[in-house]
Amino acid sequence: MAEVFLPKGMRDLLPAQMIPRLAVIDTVRGVFRRFGFEPLETPAMERIETLMGKYGDEGDKLIFRVLKRGEGGERGEVDQALRYDLTVPLARVVAMNPALPMPFRRYQIQPVWRADRPQKGRFREFTQCDVDICGSESPLCEAECLAVASAALTELGFRDFTIRLNDRRILAAMAAAIGAPDRLMSMVTAIDKLDKIGEDGVRKELAQHGFAEDAADSLFAMLNGGHIPGIEAEDAGLDVIISHAQALGVPAGRVVKDRMLARGLDYYTGPVYEIVVTEPKIGSIAGGGRYDELIGMFSGRSVPAVGVSLGLERIFVVMEELGMLGAAASATEVFVTRFAESTLTETLQAAAALRAAGVATSLSLEGGKLGKQLKQADKLGARWALVVGPDEAKQGLVQLKDLRGGGQESLSLAEAIARVQQAR
Amino acid sequence: MAEVFLPKGMRDLLPAQMIPRLAVIDTVRGVFRRFGFEPLETPAMERIETLMGKYGDEGDKLIFRVLKRGEGGERGEVDQALRYDLTVPLARVVAMNPALPMPFRRYQIQPVWRADRPQKGRFREFTQCDVDICGSESPLCEAECLAVASAALTELGFRDFTIRLNDRRILAAMAAAIGAPDRLMSMVTAIDKLDKIGEDGVRKELAQHGFAEDAADSLFAMLNGGHIPGIEAEDAGLDVIISHAQALGVPAGRVVKDRMLARGLDYYTGPVYEIVVTEPKIGSIAGGGRYDELIGMFSGRSVPAVGVSLGLERIFVVMEELGMLGAAASATEVFVTRFAESTLTETLQAAAALRAAGVATSLSLEGGKLGKQLKQADKLGARWALVVGPDEAKQGLVQLKDLRGGGQESLSLAEAIARVQQAR
Repeated sequence: MAEVFLPKGMRDLLPAQMIPRLAVIDTVRGVFRRFGFEPLETPAMERIETLMGKYGDEGDKLIFRVLKRGEGGERGEVDQALRYDLTVPLARVVAMNPALPMPFRRYQIQPVWRADRPQKGRFREFTQCDVDICGSESPLCEAECLAVASAALTELGFRDFTIRLNDRRILAAMAAAIGAPDRLMSMVTAIDKLDKIGEDGVRKELAQHGFAEDAADSLFAMLNGGHIPGIEAEDAGLDVIISHAQALGVPAGRVVKDRMLARGLDYYTGPVYEIVVTEPKIGSIAGGGRYDELIGMFSGRSVPAVGVSLGLERIFVVMEELGMLGAAASATEVFVTRFAESTLTETLQAAAALRAAGVATSLSLEGGKLGKQLKQADKLGARWALVVGPDEAKQGLVQLKDLRGGGQESLSLAEAIARVQQAR
Repeated sequence: MAEVFLPKGMRDLLPAQMIPRLAVIDTVRGVFRRFGFEPLETPAMERIETLMGKYGDEGDKLIFRVLKRGEGGERGEVDQALRYDLTVPLARVVAMNPALPMPFRRYQIQPVWRADRPQKGRFREFTQCDVDICGSESPLCEAECLAVASAALTELGFRDFTIRLNDRRILAAMAAAIGAPDRLMSMVTAIDKLDKIGEDGVRKELAQHGFAEDAADSLFAMLNGGHIPGIEAEDAGLDVIISHAQALGVPAGRVVKDRMLARGLDYYTGPVYEIVVTEPKIGSIAGGGRYDELIGMFSGRSVPAVGVSLGLERIFVVMEELGMLGAAASATEVFVTRFAESTLTETLQAAAALRAAGVATSLSLEGGKLGKQLKQADKLGARWALVVGPDEAKQGLVQLKDLRGGGQESLSLAEAIARVQQAR
């Protein structure tokens, strides 16, 4: 027998994890719909050329490559890869579908794959929940993104979270001010690690990328509130976004301008933002920004775009740690026992009637002693057990046992169904 | 600019396709839940050893392989692959989780990947909707599978469909009767193509696999109703399944025994079934069977199992061709126009109030002439447009335009929301 295990960084989601997860996804999807976003799904595999060069050098290395099948795969040829995020695929979709009505507001909830070093709570497959607006330069787009993310988190039960807001062009102005306009992305990548490695770590990384010590001093002075030349328009633009977001329902004070916010991805061109919770210390649970040049990389026609991505796995970690998920619902409301071979038909008919009435109904498949069957019902978390014995079958009745409250009653099937529905 | 396209056999699902698709998945999930099945998701990538040797030689060739990242991938080393179905991953899950309460009833709705030759309506990524029961040998399991599949299709609006039922052991008896007990899978693979290539084609394929002409004659005599020695128990078992399925709500006559049903997969060991529609001629839309030895291949402990898989893509093709999908719902109920800069705040607040009331609300991002904005609302399929002009803003009113029925009214925001909700 071969040993059985999963590839590195992969995991199964068993029912106890899936049930709350599906509820969270339903909630998020519902909020996305209310905001008038349209659903999109893209294939797991993209052409390797579509993905490369969009995520920065560190990102490119983490893309999973898939072997060709048929024509050349035997020789190890690769022409496709698993999607790394949902933004680049969206940009490709917009480029390939010039007839899409603009602005195009889409949401997309799908897994992405990154060959990161696996660690606690970080997997190589994880789900992103994205909304994006393509085809408008209006700051209302950024405000819509902040509003929809804020509404989704609020509906999930989040109370204490902050939206950090900055502009990539403000960071570009800092790079220019320290004489390194051509090394913006090195600077951004270093600043992006500030929360993880601290100022000393960032200074070390900057030095490795050839930034002089006095340049780093000037940079940190600006990051800490010093004057940055030539950012008046961008700074005012952030205030407009904040004011629009408030009108759209984001509480005053939730959005804060933060010069230290960098966001690591290559493709941002304007405002960037991320959402952080105070507790637990997990970093951001959502983030995004404006990327006006990405779609043009595919289509030649420039299409402005902006979006926000909710990180489902991190949201889940927070909800678990803060006890926000509540008691796990069971997949089974009523467990129909199998009492005697002579009443099996009536038993199965009772299960069918419960299901037709919308009651989640499982069934003893193996029969055996009633006590053992009731234990199985308990293990499944069923609230009720149903027994159809020969005496009940003769009178057209069933026995409904309350597994939580205790007690049992002889009822008609219709009465039993009503009892179950009322007790929800 | 590089040309932009998708890898072979991949496709995007744009909103017009996604909206009915999500509705179909919700319906199927709802039925699976009512039948007491628990949700499971497994990762897209499995170890290559987990997948190989489970699907037959033809299946093995269609598995997509993924390059290692980091340790060896540069040298073209492969150790993982994309899942090919949902059954083998389930078997692996059961093998790896000996503490799962048995019987384990799970449903799983996820995409799978197969490097088939792409053709009309057949893609290299497609979604399967599976239910399986692990840990019971009772024929009730097969009946539950037939009942849940039948209920799901009925709830989707299917009326004319038939469940073909056979037993792999009946096919094995045929193989034994023609002196080829060791070539069961060659025989099964050939018979499985009967619908596609006809009797002549099957005979040709049998000849290629070394079956003599008189063996093929005997085989077709049995397939057409001739005596098959030693299948009394299996045949009676199929009748039990049919009778249980009826008690569970499957209409009489829907399930028919069919000796010509083969099912191509290696791993079946007992009853097999598939669901076919009369129109259009598309082959099966669901199928499954018992596979009592698959889990044992991973765990050493033998765990009986049985399941059914609904083919979402084919179900969709049928629903489209038969006009079962209805008019596509729009993602936008109300389109909020942007009338004047002076009332932008009131406009955004109106959008926020609509959304808080659960109304799917989109928003003019760019403003411009009202006529152009209303055209955009029309393109989005919005039922209503909302205008907040300076006069209305002063009086605390909004204008609600009925884009379908025509006409418009000045209303308070609360009245407008009520009007939209009542008109649904």
